Amino acid sequence: MSDTSASLTVRLGERSYPIRFGKDLAGIARDEIGALARDGRSIAVVTDRNLARAQGPALKAALGGAPVIELAPGEETKSLAELGRVLDFMAAQRLDRASVLVAAGGGVVGDLAGFAAAAYQRGIDFVQIPTTLLAMVDSSVGGKTGINLKAGKNLAGAFHQPRAVFIATGMLGTLPPREFAAGMAEVIKYGLLADAALFEQLEREPLTVSSPELAAVIRRCCEIKARIVEADERELAREGGRALLNLGHTFGHAIEQATGYGVYLHGEAVAIGLAAAARLSEKLGSISRDDVARVERVVAAHALPARLREPLPLAALMTAMTRDKKARSGALRFVVLNAIGDSATKPDVPPALVEETWREAGAT
Amino acid sequence: MSDTSASLTVRLGERSYPIRFGKDLAGIARDEIGALARDGRSIAVVTDRNLARAQGPALKAALGGAPVIELAPGEETKSLAELGRVLDFMAAQRLDRASVLVAAGGGVVGDLAGFAAAAYQRGIDFVQIPTTLLAMVDSSVGGKTGINLKAGKNLAGAFHQPRAVFIATGMLGTLPPREFAAGMAEVIKYGLLADAALFEQLEREPLTVSSPELAAVIRRCCEIKARIVEADERELAREGGRALLNLGHTFGHAIEQATGYGVYLHGEAVAIGLAAAARLSEKLGSISRDDVARVERVVAAHALPARLREPLPLAALMTAMTRDKKARSGALRFVVLNAIGDSATKPDVPPALVEETWREAGAT
Repeated sequence: MSDTSASLTVRLGERSYPIRFGKDLAGIARDEIGALARDGRSIAVVTDRNLARAQGPALKAALGGAPVIELAPGEETKSLAELGRVLDFMAAQRLDRASVLVAAGGGVVGDLAGFAAAAYQRGIDFVQIPTTLLAMVDSSVGGKTGINLKAGKNLAGAFHQPRAVFIATGMLGTLPPREFAAGMAEVIKYGLLADAALFEQLEREPLTVSSPELAAVIRRCCEIKARIVEADERELAREGGRALLNLGHTFGHAIEQATGYGVYLHGEAVAIGLAAAARLSEKLGSISRDDVARVERVVAAHALPARLREPLPLAALMTAMTRDKKARSGALRFVVLNAIGDSATKPDVPPALVEETWREAGAT
Repeated sequence: MSDTSASLTVRLGERSYPIRFGKDLAGIARDEIGALARDGRSIAVVTDRNLARAQGPALKAALGGAPVIELAPGEETKSLAELGRVLDFMAAQRLDRASVLVAAGGGVVGDLAGFAAAAYQRGIDFVQIPTTLLAMVDSSVGGKTGINLKAGKNLAGAFHQPRAVFIATGMLGTLPPREFAAGMAEVIKYGLLADAALFEQLEREPLTVSSPELAAVIRRCCEIKARIVEADERELAREGGRALLNLGHTFGHAIEQATGYGVYLHGEAVAIGLAAAARLSEKLGSISRDDVARVERVVAAHALPARLREPLPLAALMTAMTRDKKARSGALRFVVLNAIGDSATKPDVPPALVEETWREAGAT
């Protein structure tokens, strides 16, 4: 893939934006960043400490001398206090309504900086430069931004679409293997929910950071997400729609909340959630035991857990689920598989089946 | 005016909402609040300590047993920390995406609670029950919500339209006279910017809390604001539009920022700003000295200052102005009067004229 050939548009009327793909960040970002500077629009950059260390020169080559604020890596950073720190930084840099905030990092940086851009002066433009696999295929596309509250993940935020997303696969070279694996959970999710061919490709040969197919797979994931977001930008569809992207996440969020953040990476919790969603789908009679085994094998082949590493109390997991913000009036609502590559939302799943699924995942 | 006869619609497509006018809150709110309860939508209330004390029974009669969080009165409450407290309260009450947050209070409560509603789960419905004159005619209508940062007022927030506004003039009975006067600054502003007849009415006889015309005047102010907001919801117009509502505010915000909040009430700073805007307009040749005198007389007749009570340093005021978020790339942009009742935005006002205007207002 050449550095500038590949681009994809997320079509959302006046909020449409391009996702540009390439290997080298400067190659895909330079023109647009240069255009901002020529228009007299100031930019400022939010990134994390690890990325600044590992990719500082690449960022500088792409973004020039823009002021940078570095955040501590980790989910704890998605807090109201850090949001305040970023907003104060923006004010100190005298950003105005024509300025652009650049979020260069993983999901934490993208979600937090995106919300800061949504809130600063009631909304300024922002650009996503995802640098983890998970952020490239998931969090950087679709406009969901936010922070965590004590009571749960992503409980405060905004729908705020980026102005552009730059995906430079070369930046994955410095990503720790565990983080790459975590991102693969979302890739597997796209195969399961909408693309049997993608799932089968992962089945035939696990994807690695050096796979020649990596860039094409990332692009395919962005395409699936873009089409779903275009049809249901603010997740208002009563059935299906954007909620489908939560395949595996109702289980996954419960694991993250019951353990406290940091025990499982988000993608690891989602991987367990994908296997659980497959088992729940089988209990509901929509896929076969063989399909469940295929899901578990693909998860394991990408160095991801399909079950809890240590037992967790069933009661805590069930409580976390009913408090999930996707829950409606306390009823349990899941994304289930009709087949591999075909998913649907399912309201009013019997709690007994969910409990059985949790037990099989290692809850006690 | 009977309790249910008067209603006005703010027309913003799918975000349209009614403003209901009356004397008694329960009379105008009961039906809609009852409908929410019947639909199984939970509500929670944000108010301030003073209001809870003075109007507790009226609120309870209108809103029933909904959970309430009380905030400390005062501009300092519009902080990120208090936003966090309200968001945590919402989560503790298990509000979901179908829930409704009610903001009962002045501008501080409305701005903060509105932003909390915009951010909670990326946006839930909210209802405004303004209880000060200023909130009734200004901050409760139009969807601007937000908090202050260290660097300035309203620097973070969201455009988030309420689902309904209930204006019960009976609640003004417990409003301190200084607060009523502060609200009158915004009423005078509407006359100056768009309604010469309203201005002349205030000229003939100052409005008081017991004037029979009070309800009609409040309604007229809401009408003017609604029409302006409908034409330019997100303040994107290059000229005129929503920015016209800032008549007097560029000066006013500078005073508030240079003194720290609490020395001047917002409306008092705006009153000085209105007189200053009139003088600046005269210097630019668009109104007469006699018009300026009329503005100053109406301001004074409503127990409002037309000049600084104590001298303030000119340099601090000029710096605050260039940092105002309405400023574009540092240029000074004002709302000026073409005549009483007719206003326009004016870019690139010579700083020397602005400095002269400040000196006449008492800056040194």
